[in-house]
Amino acid sequence: MRFDAPSDPAAYAFTHHLRVRFCETDAMGVVHHASYLAYLEETRVEYLRAIGRPYDQLRAEGVEFPVVEAALQYRRPLRFDDVVDVGVVVASAGGATFQMNYLVGCGGVASATCVTVHGVVDGQGRPTRVPLWLRELAAG
Amino acid sequence: MRFDAPSDPAAYAFTHHLRVRFCETDAMGVVHHASYLAYLEETRVEYLRAIGRPYDQLRAEGVEFPVVEAALQYRRPLRFDDVVDVGVVVASAGGATFQMNYLVGCGGVASATCVTVHGVVDGQGRPTRVPLWLRELAAG
Amino acid sequence: MRFDAPSDPAAYAFTHHLRVRFCETDAMGVVHHASYLAYLEETRVEYLRAIGRPYDQLRAEGVEFPVVEAALQYRRPLRFDDVVDVGVVVASAGGATFQMNYLVGCGGVASATCVTVHGVVDGQGRPTRVPLWLRELAAG
Amino acid sequence: MRFDAPSDPAAYAFTHHLRVRFCETDAMGVVHHASYLAYLEETRVEYLRAIGRPYDQLRAEGVEFPVVEAALQYRRPLRFDDVVDVGVVVASAGGATFQMNYLVGCGGVASATCVTVHGVVDGQGRPTRVPLWLRELAAG
Repeated sequence: MRFDAPSDPAAYAFTHHLRVRFCETDAMGVVHHASYLAYLEETRVEYLRAIGRPYDQLRAEGVEFPVVEAALQYRRPLRFDDVVDVGVVVASAGGATFQMNYLVGCGGVASATCVTVHGVVDGQGRPTRVPLWLRELAAG
Repeated sequence: MRFDAPSDPAAYAFTHHLRVRFCETDAMGVVHHASYLAYLEETRVEYLRAIGRPYDQLRAEGVEFPVVEAALQYRRPLRFDDVVDVGVVVASAGGATFQMNYLVGCGGVASATCVTVHGVVDGQGRPTRVPLWLRELAAG
Repeated sequence: MRFDAPSDPAAYAFTHHLRVRFCETDAMGVVHHASYLAYLEETRVEYLRAIGRPYDQLRAEGVEFPVVEAALQYRRPLRFDDVVDVGVVVASAGGATFQMNYLVGCGGVASATCVTVHGVVDGQGRPTRVPLWLRELAAG
Repeated sequence: MRFDAPSDPAAYAFTHHLRVRFCETDAMGVVHHASYLAYLEETRVEYLRAIGRPYDQLRAEGVEFPVVEAALQYRRPLRFDDVVDVGVVVASAGGATFQMNYLVGCGGVASATCVTVHGVVDGQGRPTRVPLWLRELAAG
């Protein structure tokens, strides 16, 4: 993993919007740091749908993208009811893993920059190659 | 609490749509039963916004609606990526508490019927009276 | 479901102890109401282990106990780092479902009384009969 | 942040034991990647208690340790009911932040290595210096 998630929104291929739930906050009055992983996951799924590769269909075909690494830099807290913009891009893809970068923002201000690295497994949980269409996204 | 949440969508004042996140599923392959409470909460917040009473503004004014009772009847499981429709209505309101009913559905089929009962507290956490506008909603 | 979970600790067959995590709190500064369902589930699992019926072994044998109803009455809030005592008992068992009652307490004070009703399904998700040992627990 | 969490259990100052909850699993049948952050948090809190610095007391005194960075490398999946051993150590501490390393294991096999970096804020949310006792732990 290279932690190179940029703060420039122009570096992202797709942006998903969601709203902070009350249950995602904690007793510090802000969004708990673990909730961001749910935001990244939701954004990843919406991005795959937007490019015609819905994740539930991939799963039905026996392909899963387990998270093998994740890294998050928290810059400014999010609060209940904030509208959150999550940019996502396939940053790189090799034979066995691929990396996605994320910019989590609110009102035009960066809240967090994040990275996830994914493996690819088949229906029996065996590692398999990163699909060509994902490698092409990374190259694009 | 009267558990009288009806299965008829026409009994609900407002419907909110959301999509099941992967992190909300469990090892049975379906949505974990606790995730429904997050769906009810999100729907409640969107309903309050739709009627011009945003919950974050109510909180800023020192009013909170803590959940004092909840009841859920699970009828059919939800799965990852399902689009979920949650109907909500203020079922009743007394001096100190009010009850909301919910119909959680997917593809026109009822997945769960639910009830939450809420108290009303002020900024210092002291119980206070149910606001008039909420009592009027219940009567409507 | 009969909501008859008593407030008397003597009415419970087994008590499990756990500690509130920070991530289980919300911006009201107390434990979020959905977190209680995780406490009930953890207690249920520990109770089954204590009576020699570990749930992961039941699952390996193709038996699952999905939650078909849940009801919670919240009496006093829990806070971060509280040590929580959860009493549990099999309240009743019929041919197709069984009910468990719970008393959630902290420092000798009742925090919540709760009920879950469970179905029994086999490895293919088909409803099956409540095992005899569970019916005997209910009668005990 | 230097991602230098070692796989050698001897490198950790304290080990906490916990058990995987069913609600922490997902539809892949394993523990969801976000649940690990809850395990790290619980371990951090127990470590602070063990060294005589209970986090709820620190919070009562107006000190909080918000997470400003987190990184996780997932090596082997965890499953429902697994007993998890989480080693923790203060890896480094500067004037404004400190880093903790974690080894998440199960049955003597490494499941994940993780890092969290924390700021220190006072009761008004203003950044403040890392306490001396924490800097001494890092040096130890």
